[in-house]
Amino acid sequence: MSDRSSTDEATVPRRDAARNAELALLLEVAGTPKPGNVDRLRDHPDLHFDHFLAGAVGAAPGLRLAAGSGPLGEAFERAVAGMTEQRGGNTQFGALLALCPLVRAASRDDLSSEGVRRVVAETTVEDACSFYRAFDHVGVAVDDPPEGMADLDVRRGSDAIPMVRERDLTLADLMERSGDGDGVAREWTDGFPRTFEAAERVVADDGPVSERGARAFLHLLADEVDTFVATTSDEAAAREATERAQAVLAGEEDAASLAEEFVERGINPGTTADLVAAALFVALERGVEV
Amino acid sequence: MSDRSSTDEATVPRRDAARNAELALLLEVAGTPKPGNVDRLRDHPDLHFDHFLAGAVGAAPGLRLAAGSGPLGEAFERAVAGMTEQRGGNTQFGALLALCPLVRAASRDDLSSEGVRRVVAETTVEDACSFYRAFDHVGVAVDDPPEGMADLDVRRGSDAIPMVRERDLTLADLMERSGDGDGVAREWTDGFPRTFEAAERVVADDGPVSERGARAFLHLLADEVDTFVATTSDEAAAREATERAQAVLAGEEDAASLAEEFVERGINPGTTADLVAAALFVALERGVEV
Repeated sequence: MSDRSSTDEATVPRRDAARNAELALLLEVAGTPKPGNVDRLRDHPDLHFDHFLAGAVGAAPGLRLAAGSGPLGEAFERAVAGMTEQRGGNTQFGALLALCPLVRAASRDDLSSEGVRRVVAETTVEDACSFYRAFDHVGVAVDDPPEGMADLDVRRGSDAIPMVRERDLTLADLMERSGDGDGVAREWTDGFPRTFEAAERVVADDGPVSERGARAFLHLLADEVDTFVATTSDEAAAREATERAQAVLAGEEDAASLAEEFVERGINPGTTADLVAAALFVALERGVEV
Repeated sequence: MSDRSSTDEATVPRRDAARNAELALLLEVAGTPKPGNVDRLRDHPDLHFDHFLAGAVGAAPGLRLAAGSGPLGEAFERAVAGMTEQRGGNTQFGALLALCPLVRAASRDDLSSEGVRRVVAETTVEDACSFYRAFDHVGVAVDDPPEGMADLDVRRGSDAIPMVRERDLTLADLMERSGDGDGVAREWTDGFPRTFEAAERVVADDGPVSERGARAFLHLLADEVDTFVATTSDEAAAREATERAQAVLAGEEDAASLAEEFVERGINPGTTADLVAAALFVALERGVEV
């Protein structure tokens, strides 16, 4: 299918931030091995590679809104709603939560830790309400809410909205309160330090971009326990996942065998994958070519 | 990453024709094994799975134009230009050529053999000029032009445009003249019979949609020689590819082994893959759920 490209640079449209975000979702799921996750070579029992492809395409209109100037929460809700137009359930909820403020910052030519902090600081109570509505579209595995926040349990979906308004909580406030149990929320609060660091790794790496993503995944997992594993399995499994990623990086364990084992045991470092999608987006915006 | 979906059907946006076309491109490349093609498990030496992901995302703005009412040739040229924003060269030229009129027909609620014949019949000399311009964006392996058409060789790209205008050829005229050597052009001229037939097979099949696409691929290849193999390898290789696809369907040969062998030998039934993308699009429009 391929002769040599004679691309006329001048007439080729550049992918914009919304398209790069969609492509980042696709490159993330393609990257292999990412122990415990769906990837190019592995499916979960009820969650197939195809579901992620459809999730990414379905999320695109919401990502387009994130690249605009309307309410960020609405963009996120729309992205999640579109993502669910497939039969696998939740594929990329956390990745979209990470991507939306990054896409907004990129669309302002302000894709830096400070830039995304500004985006986060601007979120409103209405954005928080949209965030709750997003949970109406799809079941998402989350921890029990922190002490004193039972009426704000995200699993209540839009039923929690009156309480969000009563407490006058912005989306930034909510993320700050969820940071202990959720690695994506922590990125929101801290200016996405792990995302930008992983993006630098992807930029400095070489080879196919999805494979760079898989390598970034191992480093992220080795650096910090995955909050999704802590929620869906337990703390011990989360610690084990991190220790075994360290072993892979030390050359003591084989990543592909670990991937088989984790899929079999249902150990799924989904938050780490979310951050890889975010990092791939930043890397694409930084000019990494596919 | 997955709890059970509790999707609220009423509020979930449906994928439109342009998005279904993009998704069809992604499901096509994911489907495995498709002997000789890049798929979920196989890359070519200079053409990686990632290139197809970026090709599909890049083509999306052009596919959006195809779903509108402007010139179809311009939509195609734009799709090809966007497709090339990756380093693999030509990934989906033929698939986009097949998809554009189908997307246009679908956007008119007229996705049938007759409906797409109407779209083809409406193409103009300007559409033919845009078709030639598309060859400026990327190298595409094609046959020598038929007798008496040397000055219309598509490899001349936009340099051939004065001659297209002089001869007053529409894009439908060009496709008719190219049908002998190109399976996609033949679909244009004949009302996409193989595409619609393969789509019916995909609809009637079950399991993950990309895997249905891979099965449809084998049937298409077993039914008819692949014109891209005839062009890039030779007629004997094209006949062999078809015979061995027949052997796979007869249970006499293993599809995965054949895929390894064909990739190694550079036998690439790209036109058959193009028709699979087109068939997957029709199937998605017919309501097949991912």
